[in-house]
Amino acid sequence: MDQRQDRALRARAEAVIPGGMYGHQSTGLLPDDYPQFFAKGRNAHLWDVDGNRYLDFMCAYGPNLFGYGHETIDAAYIGQLQHGDTLTGPSALIVELAEALTAMVTHADWAIFCKNGTDATTMALVTARAQTRRKIVIRARGAYHGSAPWCTPRPTGALDSERSHQIFCDYNDVASLEAAVAEAGDDLAAIFAAPFKHDAFVDQAEPDPTYAQRARQLCDQTGAMLVVDDVRAGFRLSRDCSWSRLGVQPDLSTWGKCIANGHPISALLGSDSARKGAAAIYATGSFWYQAAPMAAALETLRLIRETDYLGHLETLGQHLADGLRERAAAQGFGFRVTGPVQMPLFLFDDDPDLRKGFHWSSQMLAQGVYVHPWHNMFMCAAMTLEDMDQALNAADVAFKSLKKDGPGLQPVAKMAFLTGG
Amino acid sequence: MDQRQDRALRARAEAVIPGGMYGHQSTGLLPDDYPQFFAKGRNAHLWDVDGNRYLDFMCAYGPNLFGYGHETIDAAYIGQLQHGDTLTGPSALIVELAEALTAMVTHADWAIFCKNGTDATTMALVTARAQTRRKIVIRARGAYHGSAPWCTPRPTGALDSERSHQIFCDYNDVASLEAAVAEAGDDLAAIFAAPFKHDAFVDQAEPDPTYAQRARQLCDQTGAMLVVDDVRAGFRLSRDCSWSRLGVQPDLSTWGKCIANGHPISALLGSDSARKGAAAIYATGSFWYQAAPMAAALETLRLIRETDYLGHLETLGQHLADGLRERAAAQGFGFRVTGPVQMPLFLFDDDPDLRKGFHWSSQMLAQGVYVHPWHNMFMCAAMTLEDMDQALNAADVAFKSLKKDGPGLQPVAKMAFLTGG
Repeated sequence: MDQRQDRALRARAEAVIPGGMYGHQSTGLLPDDYPQFFAKGRNAHLWDVDGNRYLDFMCAYGPNLFGYGHETIDAAYIGQLQHGDTLTGPSALIVELAEALTAMVTHADWAIFCKNGTDATTMALVTARAQTRRKIVIRARGAYHGSAPWCTPRPTGALDSERSHQIFCDYNDVASLEAAVAEAGDDLAAIFAAPFKHDAFVDQAEPDPTYAQRARQLCDQTGAMLVVDDVRAGFRLSRDCSWSRLGVQPDLSTWGKCIANGHPISALLGSDSARKGAAAIYATGSFWYQAAPMAAALETLRLIRETDYLGHLETLGQHLADGLRERAAAQGFGFRVTGPVQMPLFLFDDDPDLRKGFHWSSQMLAQGVYVHPWHNMFMCAAMTLEDMDQALNAADVAFKSLKKDGPGLQPVAKMAFLTGG
Repeated sequence: MDQRQDRALRARAEAVIPGGMYGHQSTGLLPDDYPQFFAKGRNAHLWDVDGNRYLDFMCAYGPNLFGYGHETIDAAYIGQLQHGDTLTGPSALIVELAEALTAMVTHADWAIFCKNGTDATTMALVTARAQTRRKIVIRARGAYHGSAPWCTPRPTGALDSERSHQIFCDYNDVASLEAAVAEAGDDLAAIFAAPFKHDAFVDQAEPDPTYAQRARQLCDQTGAMLVVDDVRAGFRLSRDCSWSRLGVQPDLSTWGKCIANGHPISALLGSDSARKGAAAIYATGSFWYQAAPMAAALETLRLIRETDYLGHLETLGQHLADGLRERAAAQGFGFRVTGPVQMPLFLFDDDPDLRKGFHWSSQMLAQGVYVHPWHNMFMCAAMTLEDMDQALNAADVAFKSLKKDGPGLQPVAKMAFLTGG
């Protein structure tokens, strides 16, 4: 696998980007052979800067839902760009998009558009506090809700005071949720919830309906706002808010990533129960009124409504999960595929520093299949059953390689933090 | 002036957007005849949804530097979009853009790209705290540095604890800056500074070089980081960081708005003095690695380097400012044009609730010239001397109308807050 261009770019990046790269797209915590820089995306495939082609199970960490470079979605973007994009005010599309989303998402009566997922989750927090005139938010330990000071998983440079008034519970643990609510007393502004447990480094878990229903009930009893953070999972589990599958409607939900298939837009949706708070806050951004991403979002929503993308993702995901479990077992590995099949996470048993996962993932990469060793992955509608079979064939080779090389694998130094190192 | 489409959209927006619109592009604090929704932008002009055409002195609140729908900039965006935009990793353009900016901006050794101006200012704050391991930031009363809880000008829903560890001084007042530094003691992380005083509702002011130099000196003495927030003014005053004109180099500078001529990208630039802190923080966003806005930024920077846009903006701005002062004086008005001529703010003497400003601005609007009654405006390179003369002719009519109608003007209820109402 040629990596010369990637290595040359890394050397240049080291000079002009702190640490060589930042944020979730840094390869700092990926195997050393993973490319940092990409040149092209088309449908379900990526090409790195050295021309290597991959079936991409990360889908840009979520945004790619219908395929990279989707013809009608990109045409909607470009068409609107030629009329007007960032202007001195919004276009009519902001109203059309708010109408489209509130028509699709059961709990939603209104929308505010922004750019980052973190914009949406931060506005949800501020809106809940404005609406209730209370301070405390309950959220699950280990859940990711963005990278602002209040929620960033690596709080270097954030103040304790910026992270105050938060109480942590354990996802799916009703008793810990109830204890947190009791601790909040009469100052509970909101309960935040991921649609399922999609924390990094650990098995994913579907939401326990009892937990979700209890969260709703506790909010009703206390007057707090229930927030479902659907930034990562939105529209990959449902054509509605993800917890609608459990019969639970939040007051606020946060969206981003794939709602315009990779074009930059995120959203806070809310019920009338939170409208007054939302109207009272001040949040804005230079590009929040951009018309072109709204045009792309409208076309993406049309595809969500009018195609069988969701059934297709589930079919592909189930085929992949079943096939992987079978092939892992055949080689004697305990290999866990967790979470919804269309957003799976892969972990090996007895692999605390991920040395098995890193070796196996590198073997997949070498065969043109880009998987992630510790973060959930994403299926896109441009994938096919043939792609799944390619991935399964690659996995077979990778499991066999791991069986052969496993006993001699060295510790993964960069992941030593997982085992307290 | 036909407003039927605009009125119809406002009614629909009222249902699906809290308060009908949010943030800085809400017309809530503009005269009632200002359009909320726009259909098209081209060069220096805007069209609202009813087909009314305006010479636009807001330039999308800054992003439009070379004209709406700029041919080569938009071609760069679209060309890159067709290769790849939001992928599973950045493209080579992130390195090229970091190299281009650090080559142009004297103090900058590195760059981090993001979406909102607020992303950049918040990262500047967090980086300064990470670098210095201290907490306090000094900033000027009334200065806008974004809309996150720590800095939003309307803190409904934000906690006092999120806004702690800030000390306020008065812009250009060396004694108040020194007092703030003394108060911070050994816990000063950063001094934030706007490149000039561009607060809303009040006269703008150029930076006093003594103030800027003293800020640098105080940072050197205390080990704090100097941050110049160039999100709004960057590249409209200089092809370098705005305070380079005063011979003052910050440790960190924040950029956004026009660096890709309206395409969504912002940036934190830093010196080696802040590199360690920047590498230690965790901040990221779903679309921060988008390649298409970086392609557009590279083309925008090329135009900044290779054209005389800056001299052109100054010539236009001076012609406009001189002409307005002359026409105002001829009708007997005290009319103040403040700030750099390419980013002017207009205020009338003896106009505490802006009733004169509102009337005059509405008269300008009716003649196809979009000005703002209390926020600084922005010139773009697509404007011409003929455009300035059109604006001056319109102003002549507007001043005469104000002279006639002025004595009977009613209070502007929505601006009563300015006079404590």
